[in-house]
Amino acid sequence: MVAPTISLDVDIPLATPTLVIDEKVLDANIARVAGFATGVGLALRPHVKTHKSVEIARRQLAAGAVGITVATLSEALVFAVWLDAARAALLAELLTMSTVFLGIDSAESAQQFAGSGLAGSGRLAIMVEIDSGHHRSGVLPADSGALAAVARDCGLDVAGVFTFPGHSYSPEDRQTAARDEEAALGGAVASLSEQGIVARVVSGGSTPSLEFARSGILTEVRPGVSVFGDAQQWELGTCAAHDIALTVLATVVSRSPDRIILDSGSKVLGADRAAYSTGFGRLLDHPQARIRALSEHHATVTGVDLALGSRVRVVPNHVCTAVNLADLYAVVTASHGHAVAWPVDARGANT
Amino acid sequence: MVAPTISLDVDIPLATPTLVIDEKVLDANIARVAGFATGVGLALRPHVKTHKSVEIARRQLAAGAVGITVATLSEALVFAVWLDAARAALLAELLTMSTVFLGIDSAESAQQFAGSGLAGSGRLAIMVEIDSGHHRSGVLPADSGALAAVARDCGLDVAGVFTFPGHSYSPEDRQTAARDEEAALGGAVASLSEQGIVARVVSGGSTPSLEFARSGILTEVRPGVSVFGDAQQWELGTCAAHDIALTVLATVVSRSPDRIILDSGSKVLGADRAAYSTGFGRLLDHPQARIRALSEHHATVTGVDLALGSRVRVVPNHVCTAVNLADLYAVVTASHGHAVAWPVDARGANT
Repeated sequence: MVAPTISLDVDIPLATPTLVIDEKVLDANIARVAGFATGVGLALRPHVKTHKSVEIARRQLAAGAVGITVATLSEALVFAVWLDAARAALLAELLTMSTVFLGIDSAESAQQFAGSGLAGSGRLAIMVEIDSGHHRSGVLPADSGALAAVARDCGLDVAGVFTFPGHSYSPEDRQTAARDEEAALGGAVASLSEQGIVARVVSGGSTPSLEFARSGILTEVRPGVSVFGDAQQWELGTCAAHDIALTVLATVVSRSPDRIILDSGSKVLGADRAAYSTGFGRLLDHPQARIRALSEHHATVTGVDLALGSRVRVVPNHVCTAVNLADLYAVVTASHGHAVAWPVDARGANT
Repeated sequence: MVAPTISLDVDIPLATPTLVIDEKVLDANIARVAGFATGVGLALRPHVKTHKSVEIARRQLAAGAVGITVATLSEALVFAVWLDAARAALLAELLTMSTVFLGIDSAESAQQFAGSGLAGSGRLAIMVEIDSGHHRSGVLPADSGALAAVARDCGLDVAGVFTFPGHSYSPEDRQTAARDEEAALGGAVASLSEQGIVARVVSGGSTPSLEFARSGILTEVRPGVSVFGDAQQWELGTCAAHDIALTVLATVVSRSPDRIILDSGSKVLGADRAAYSTGFGRLLDHPQARIRALSEHHATVTGVDLALGSRVRVVPNHVCTAVNLADLYAVVTASHGHAVAWPVDARGANT
C-alpha cells in the first residue's frame, strides 16, 4: 500500500457526490504542460472538451497556449461568446486569432463547407484529418494531398494536417503511437507538398503520447486530459496520484464485510472502462482499493474498509466524461483552502 | 438480417446527436407494463431514474401506477415540487400518498434518520433493503428482522422490505434472479415477523426480471427501463426493436471501406457496456450493425455502409445513463408526426 500523502486540508461542507478541483494541482498541471511544450519547441493548443470551463481555458492561455481546441460547434459557441468583462482577455485572444480551424476527412465535407458561404470570412481554415493508427476518422497520409487539393480547389484555405493518436491509450503503446503520429503527419506533409500545398500547422498530441512529442514534423500539440489527470492516466503512467487535480467527493453509504458502497455511480463518474483499467475508478487516498462494480448511483469498492458516512475522493477513470455529467465544480482554492463554485460552462454542449 | 420495419415517418429538422422519443411506442410501453402488473396482481411503482421526466411520470400514474420510485433526494425534489397547473394531477397524487419510503440497510442509517427529526411527520416510512443476490447494498434476509427492530425501536415506521435483483442483467439469469428475489423477500418477511413487524409493502422488480414477478410474496414492482427499452434489453430479450421508444438521432460524419463514424459518442450515448453486450449500442434500423468503439464524440460502426450525411437512429446500451446526459427530448408525437421538446426535468439530479 502506498501511504496517502495527499490531503485537502479542508472540511468541505458539500453534498456528495460532487466534483472537486484542487486548484494548486490544477495550476501545477497547466504550468507543467506549458513548460514541456515550450521546452520541446511546440505550440500548445489544449483541448477544452476535458474541462469545458472558461476559467480553466483562460488560465491555459495565460500560461502560453496559442489557442484552444474544441470538439463540437456548440462547445466553440460557449467558448466564443465571452462577452462580459471577466472574459475580456480570452475574447481578445480569440479575436486576435486569424483563423478558426475546421477538420475534414472527405471531399464531401470540403465541398459542403465550401458551399456554405462561411469560408469567405477569411478567418476560417481547413485542417485535413489523418488516421495515424487509431482507425477512427481521418484519411491515410498518402491520400491527404489529394483531399487537400480538392479543398483548395473549392476555394478553401488549407492550413495543414492533424491527427489524434488514440491508440496511445495503452500502457505498451504510448511511445509507438507517438512515433506513428510523427510518421503519419510527416507523410501527410509530403503528400500535401506534392500538390503544392504547404502545411503551416501540423498538429498532434494526446495526453498519453505527449511526453514523446518533439518539434520537427509537428508544430503543435492538443492534449486535453493532462489538465486534470484521471485514473486512466494514473494507470497508463502519465501522472502520479499527486498530479490528479479533479476528484469526486463521495460518501460511504453501505458496508459489508467484503465491500463498501459509495454514492458515486456511473451517472457521476461515467462508465468508461478501458481494457487496461483495473476497475471503474480509483480512490485517491487508498491506492490499493478498486471500484469493482458501478451502477447508476452506487460504486462497489473492495480493498479498503471505511466507516459508514466516511468521505473519500474518487478518481474517475476518464475525467472528460465525468465532467460532462456535472453542472458545477467545487474548487478548493490554493489561497483560502475553502471551496468555491466554477461552472462547467459547456456541459452538454455535444452537438 | 432483420428487415427494418420501423419508420419515424417524419423528417426531423434537428441537429444531431439528439435524443428522440417515439410517443406511440412510449405510450404502448407504459400501457403494457401497467397491464402486466394488473394482470399478475402487483402494484406498480415505476422508477423515474430512467426518464427523469415529469410528463412521463404523469402518464405512468395515469396508467395506474401507485406512485414513483426515485434514486436520489434531488430527484425526489424535482418530482415533488410540481407547483404549476400542468402538474396538478401529479401533485394531488403525491399529496394523497400517505408515506414517502426511504431505504436503509444499516442500524447507523436508522439511528441517523431517527435523530434527524424528519421521521415525526407521519408521512415518512422506512423500507429495509435486502440483498437478493446482486451483492451491492442491502442486508441478508435473515438479518432484516433485527435491523427492522432497531428502526422500530428508534421510533421509525417500518413499512416493509425491498430489493433490486440486479443480477437479472444477464441473459441466462433473468428467471433465476426473479426466484432469488422472491425467496429473499420471503425470508425477510419471515424475519420481520419474528420481531412482530408486519411487512405491508414487499417491493421487487427490475426490467429483466419483471416478466417472472408474481403476487404472493411481492406486493409491488419498480421497473425503470421498460418505459423506453434499450440495447441491453434488446439483447437480454426483454423487448423487441419495435418496443424501443428512445433513440439517439445521429449523422454519418466519416466513412471508410470497413466502417462508418457517427457523431454520437460516449458523451451522448453513455459508455456502459455489459459483459453480454455485443457492442457499445445498436442501430434501430440496421440490426446487423454494431458499434465497435466509442469515443467522446464518435461512434465507430461496422456491419453497415451508409452515405456521408445519412441520419440513423442509435439505440444506447443503457438508456438511463444516456438520458442523464441530455437536457431535452425531441418527442415525435403520435398525433402530429412532428417533434416537440420535453425537458429532462431531473437531469443531473444525482446528489
